[in-house]
Amino acid sequence: MKVAVFRKEHFNAAHRLFNPDWDDDTNFKVFGKCSNPHYHGHNYELYVQLIGEVNPKTGYVYDMKLLSDVIREHVIKKFDHKNLNLDTEYFKDKIPTAENIAVIIYDILRKEIDADLELKIRLYETERNFVEYPVG
Amino acid sequence: MKVAVFRKEHFNAAHRLFNPDWDDDTNFKVFGKCSNPHYHGHNYELYVQLIGEVNPKTGYVYDMKLLSDVIREHVIKKFDHKNLNLDTEYFKDKIPTAENIAVIIYDILRKEIDADLELKIRLYETERNFVEYPVG
Amino acid sequence: MKVAVFRKEHFNAAHRLFNPDWDDDTNFKVFGKCSNPHYHGHNYELYVQLIGEVNPKTGYVYDMKLLSDVIREHVIKKFDHKNLNLDTEYFKDKIPTAENIAVIIYDILRKEIDADLELKIRLYETERNFVEYPVG
Amino acid sequence: MKVAVFRKEHFNAAHRLFNPDWDDDTNFKVFGKCSNPHYHGHNYELYVQLIGEVNPKTGYVYDMKLLSDVIREHVIKKFDHKNLNLDTEYFKDKIPTAENIAVIIYDILRKEIDADLELKIRLYETERNFVEYPVG
Amino acid sequence: MKVAVFRKEHFNAAHRLFNPDWDDDTNFKVFGKCSNPHYHGHNYELYVQLIGEVNPKTGYVYDMKLLSDVIREHVIKKFDHKNLNLDTEYFKDKIPTAENIAVIIYDILRKEIDADLELKIRLYETERNFVEYPVG
Amino acid sequence: MKVAVFRKEHFNAAHRLFNPDWDDDTNFKVFGKCSNPHYHGHNYELYVQLIGEVNPKTGYVYDMKLLSDVIREHVIKKFDHKNLNLDTEYFKDKIPTAENIAVIIYDILRKEIDADLELKIRLYETERNFVEYPVG
Repeated sequence: MKVAVFRKEHFNAAHRLFNPDWDDDTNFKVFGKCSNPHYHGHNYELYVQLIGEVNPKTGYVYDMKLLSDVIREHVIKKFDHKNLNLDTEYFKDKIPTAENIAVIIYDILRKEIDADLELKIRLYETERNFVEYPVG
Repeated sequence: MKVAVFRKEHFNAAHRLFNPDWDDDTNFKVFGKCSNPHYHGHNYELYVQLIGEVNPKTGYVYDMKLLSDVIREHVIKKFDHKNLNLDTEYFKDKIPTAENIAVIIYDILRKEIDADLELKIRLYETERNFVEYPVG
Repeated sequence: MKVAVFRKEHFNAAHRLFNPDWDDDTNFKVFGKCSNPHYHGHNYELYVQLIGEVNPKTGYVYDMKLLSDVIREHVIKKFDHKNLNLDTEYFKDKIPTAENIAVIIYDILRKEIDADLELKIRLYETERNFVEYPVG
Repeated sequence: MKVAVFRKEHFNAAHRLFNPDWDDDTNFKVFGKCSNPHYHGHNYELYVQLIGEVNPKTGYVYDMKLLSDVIREHVIKKFDHKNLNLDTEYFKDKIPTAENIAVIIYDILRKEIDADLELKIRLYETERNFVEYPVG
Repeated sequence: MKVAVFRKEHFNAAHRLFNPDWDDDTNFKVFGKCSNPHYHGHNYELYVQLIGEVNPKTGYVYDMKLLSDVIREHVIKKFDHKNLNLDTEYFKDKIPTAENIAVIIYDILRKEIDADLELKIRLYETERNFVEYPVG
Repeated sequence: MKVAVFRKEHFNAAHRLFNPDWDDDTNFKVFGKCSNPHYHGHNYELYVQLIGEVNPKTGYVYDMKLLSDVIREHVIKKFDHKNLNLDTEYFKDKIPTAENIAVIIYDILRKEIDADLELKIRLYETERNFVEYPVG
């Protein structure tokens, strides 16, 4: 009897979309105002989903308080009120699009969550643009 | 041509997370303030999903008014403005976590909805904690 | 490494649920107040989901600005501030239920989006009634 | 000790903005796509606010269940799943803008609510456009 | 140059509406299912508003982090995951309606916030029922 | 017969809270992680309120399409996808707190809106922190 559980957390960060292999014109053509050299920012809403068996003793798939702690310790602390391009180790050679941020958060949390629990990330950059990883 | 249709309903209930096989200290260690003996409560948001063929005469997978009536009759009436531990038959020997409540709502509705329609439950305990059953 | 990306758009439209093969009584019995002859309306919220590989040069599955443009050009322009029954070509012989509208939006966008990207539609008629197509 | 209490209800309706004293061109110039002759529609969200003394016996300014009943009987029944221009008596010689709808709802409810309770209406036509009456 | 600042916090609690001067029948007639003897509960959303001059050195009316700490220390700690009737000192002889809870939160916070700052409380019991105090 | 009308717009920006008269330690003590030297960012939600008489010919206090255009031209264009500290002229000697941003948006729009219309700004920095100006 598998159930999916979800926990929502958030962080506020600055970022810039920019490919260093391209000149400024190409970057502007591809990324538009998202490539503004002085950065812009977002309130990121992060949903972490775990799928697993319900423990009959607790009625939990996972303790949501603990999941919140894990996300805060390993993700929020690193990303909240930060410049994703400059203040984190993750976007030295990756563009901090919502897609890439979600994959990186997945990779970070995958190491912290028991392997028998399926893990999925949904990340809202704005209310109108969001991503999910992995798929299916 | 299968389409998924969703209906949102809600109920307000009190509950307490507590395993009678454990002493109070262990319950508090596992469930924290959720094990408060005098109960606390939530505005539960319930999404019921049905998957099936679109009826070409109506354009419906299922009449949403009818689905609302079924949910209200078989779920909301039993859970709304109730103490889940004391006022319902379902949590005599089950802890009323979101996971268990969702499974029980599924079991209740599964008997009321035609077997050729796939059924899925999403239940929000708070905006930040929610569950889905079954999975996949 | 496949990621799902979502874009939200909206349109406001009038519609009426009505099967011309039936008399008014039968229509009222099936569709209730939704068959009101003078129409009623909704703020439709549309989520378009694409699934595909992340382009390593851009970090994008798809440019969300471009996706927004495609949806506005091919869907919103045709449906926004329109009477779905009278002002569009799509519901001459189909009832404009949320199910049918979602399928038609899928068919419209499927022609505009590269075939190697999976496409999915979620359409909210109200906050409490919504549909998804295709399923799974 | 005065407290303000609020109750939210909703209705879905079709409407058209159109001044019969003007020709179609002028109407289109003023109202744009909102003057589409075949109507369009909205999910209207209605907030009714009452201000008054808290009754020490009930702890209520007003019974919210009763307020909901009053709004449904006198407003929702008349407007929900209706064409505001054609199906109601209120917009024979008034344009059904959010401003005018709010004033009319105020006038309807003012007669139903005790005069010692202050009454205020907030009406959302969309999430991005809304009005309040009276002011201050 | 006065500005209003708002901070949102939340708590989950059980309560029961019940006037001990009345018999059960009268309580049920007045409060309906809200008088269920075993309690029910809500996710309360609390907005605290302060009005004051902007400090030119900080650009703040009040440090929102500090306001959050004050609310958590003096309100949330006392009410969150509690039974308002049984676990708090405030509703021994007051019915825990949203109106009364808001007034009590105001009285608690009024002692903690500088007198030159105007204070106002908005409390959501559900998305559809909420109150504001003081008024005007 | 005065009615208040509201229009919601949004912009995404980076900012940093920092008083140049103070050393880094003092800035960190006052502003915490909001003073991170590499900036962070937000999805700002902006509500513009106008209060005025309803024009009997249009049923409008103000054309919401026009209000949207005015806000986009004079506010969004200057702030969206920008670094508020570096890319705008407004925060050379003012700290870009929500309070100060709201006052500046008011000052900008006050020049663009007829003086017989009352103007008010509500600005959300996050869902939990927001401000309103002017007050009362």
